[in-house]
Amino acid sequence: MTSLADVEALDRADPLARFRAAFDLPVGVIYLDGNSLGPPTRAALARIAACADGEWKDGLIRSWNDAGWIELPRRAGAKIARLIGARPDEVIVADSVSVNLFKLAGALLGAGGAICVEADEFPTDQYVLEGLSRLTGAPFQRLAPGEAPAGGVFVKSLVHYKTAAVADMLAMEARARKSGTRIIWDLSHAAGLFPVDVAGAGARFAVGCGYKYLNGGPGAPSFVYVEGREAERLSQPIAGWMGAARPFDFCTDYHPAAGSARFAAGTPPILSLVALDAALDLFEGADLSLAQAKARLLSDIFIDRAAALGLAPTLGPGPRGGHVCFAHKEGYAVMQALIARGVIGDFRAPDLMRFGFSPLFLSYADVWRAADRLADVLRTEEWRRPEFNRRGAVT
Amino acid sequence: MTSLADVEALDRADPLARFRAAFDLPVGVIYLDGNSLGPPTRAALARIAACADGEWKDGLIRSWNDAGWIELPRRAGAKIARLIGARPDEVIVADSVSVNLFKLAGALLGAGGAICVEADEFPTDQYVLEGLSRLTGAPFQRLAPGEAPAGGVFVKSLVHYKTAAVADMLAMEARARKSGTRIIWDLSHAAGLFPVDVAGAGARFAVGCGYKYLNGGPGAPSFVYVEGREAERLSQPIAGWMGAARPFDFCTDYHPAAGSARFAAGTPPILSLVALDAALDLFEGADLSLAQAKARLLSDIFIDRAAALGLAPTLGPGPRGGHVCFAHKEGYAVMQALIARGVIGDFRAPDLMRFGFSPLFLSYADVWRAADRLADVLRTEEWRRPEFNRRGAVT
Repeated sequence: MTSLADVEALDRADPLARFRAAFDLPVGVIYLDGNSLGPPTRAALARIAACADGEWKDGLIRSWNDAGWIELPRRAGAKIARLIGARPDEVIVADSVSVNLFKLAGALLGAGGAICVEADEFPTDQYVLEGLSRLTGAPFQRLAPGEAPAGGVFVKSLVHYKTAAVADMLAMEARARKSGTRIIWDLSHAAGLFPVDVAGAGARFAVGCGYKYLNGGPGAPSFVYVEGREAERLSQPIAGWMGAARPFDFCTDYHPAAGSARFAAGTPPILSLVALDAALDLFEGADLSLAQAKARLLSDIFIDRAAALGLAPTLGPGPRGGHVCFAHKEGYAVMQALIARGVIGDFRAPDLMRFGFSPLFLSYADVWRAADRLADVLRTEEWRRPEFNRRGAVT
Repeated sequence: MTSLADVEALDRADPLARFRAAFDLPVGVIYLDGNSLGPPTRAALARIAACADGEWKDGLIRSWNDAGWIELPRRAGAKIARLIGARPDEVIVADSVSVNLFKLAGALLGAGGAICVEADEFPTDQYVLEGLSRLTGAPFQRLAPGEAPAGGVFVKSLVHYKTAAVADMLAMEARARKSGTRIIWDLSHAAGLFPVDVAGAGARFAVGCGYKYLNGGPGAPSFVYVEGREAERLSQPIAGWMGAARPFDFCTDYHPAAGSARFAAGTPPILSLVALDAALDLFEGADLSLAQAKARLLSDIFIDRAAALGLAPTLGPGPRGGHVCFAHKEGYAVMQALIARGVIGDFRAPDLMRFGFSPLFLSYADVWRAADRLADVLRTEEWRRPEFNRRGAVT
């Protein structure tokens, strides 16, 4: 690709181009942060309005039945199940990734062994597991990146949040079975980007995020996948009523719901949950193999252009997810200057500029133009301005 | 009160009558279920729309800083703190009541002793505590109602979900200090209904619900109160990044945020959280002593009228909260028939019709008319119709 005309030709031939119309993206913005917070679909915005102004305002308490609020955790879960290769009843939507990771790792402690995580895993996953260890006394073990766990519970991101490296789920599950390790996959940077096949890989446990490629909205509820037979055996440690078999019997003894539904806990945040549920309908006709290939090409184009600017990506040799990081010692300020020019990515301390290539709403021309603007920012050195060097609470 | 004219005179003199205009209640409905799911304020509906169609759609990831999303758990917490007698930084909004109860009880296990709860406590509170016991091995003890705990962690609803009995917080805290018991108060049926004074009572730990009298929306996030010095000492077991001191440093080691803010965990559901935050502004000029007195009078009027229909409330002798239950062997069907006539209450298994008297949007005439309709339902026996005897998932 050597010109805008080249990439515009790709756009004309793009079988996924039609998905862009499902979004209402702000004019003048090229959004390379759908991997951090996906944008809303028009359907999700309409659904939020219908929930607030209709189901809540007029239906009031009746909407738990009449609008099907009570079914949403299972319904949205079934939609996610399709995207990760699970059966519809093996996925439930509830709580945040942190809380779900805690619940699932806690449920798996019964079989013994340490709680293990690689030292370069997403920090909050490490925090949660170490906290679980403090609470229960189960040993906590921080592994070197790439070190194989020897039994116990092991948490692993399928796509690494910085390098975008994709782990070999099939091979790791095969090794894990030999060592008696229970792997919990964190699918946050994978679900909705490419086809995940938990059943095919023999993966039995996973959590994932609703607000990245699934476009479920800021802080959208998270999901839990537990393979059906395993779910029946597990005792979920946060035994809230929404994970009980018959919450409205108001009996004193807890009886878990059948299967993965027991991984719900308290009352779910409905306004956020309807947004996710509606957002998931986008994937009804989406071929995620095509999405994966497009994300790869989008990022390759950007990497090529960045190379010409002296920026090299922090990538490993293997398959990768939908985002690319570039180290730059003034990465924070450069990203702020780029955002001021309408190209939105994010920054990951200490020095990484991170760009995400969500294939369902980005065009090839978007990415070409984003690279043009990055070139302008670096050429003019406008990132040196003081306003681009003041950090917000969220970087 | 012997006539509609009598109660209309009360409405004309009601200093809280002006709050009704903050709500947009459906025509023809008398809503006696604000204790289960509060209705939306107009301000909350506007805020949800602004968040979805503006902050998310146009601001995208930038809204974490620019729209102050990152501050919402503390900001909403500070608004709730005013209502329960806490300092602004002692309350944080996060997760569900179930998850918060787990976090707080888990954090308090370090000092030893059993996890105790009365056998007639709200079932999900019992489930969560028993689950925590299973996970940690801490002993679990189900006490007889009214039995004083002897040390350990004790969870107690300030207002009982059925009887509406209000516990004597001051006296129980005094006893608890002598026995070394840490009481976690569940303020779900109290916050926003009457002035709670945790500081005055010496209460150090509490959780509560956002969707009842606080009108935060279906499944609104919950709150956690921890007295300031206690918070500094406690290790929160679900150590997600939002409870970390500097989540965006992405360092491997968890350092808790100062004070009660460490009781946050994962990324909060923003659409649900903005609704709660906006709903809380209603209380800015509300005198909750007046609210308490009005709720009492509203319920007294209804109880009097119900007595004339042969219905006796299941009430104790002491002070009570904002709801009243009546046992009726066909309570489910009677409630459905009443709902069909536009009077919405709820049903609590096995046989209780529950009515809530939210003082900020109900009028005395509403309650009078609701009693008229209840009389009609009982007189005509229309609750015998088959459609009123088919149960939904949520009763």
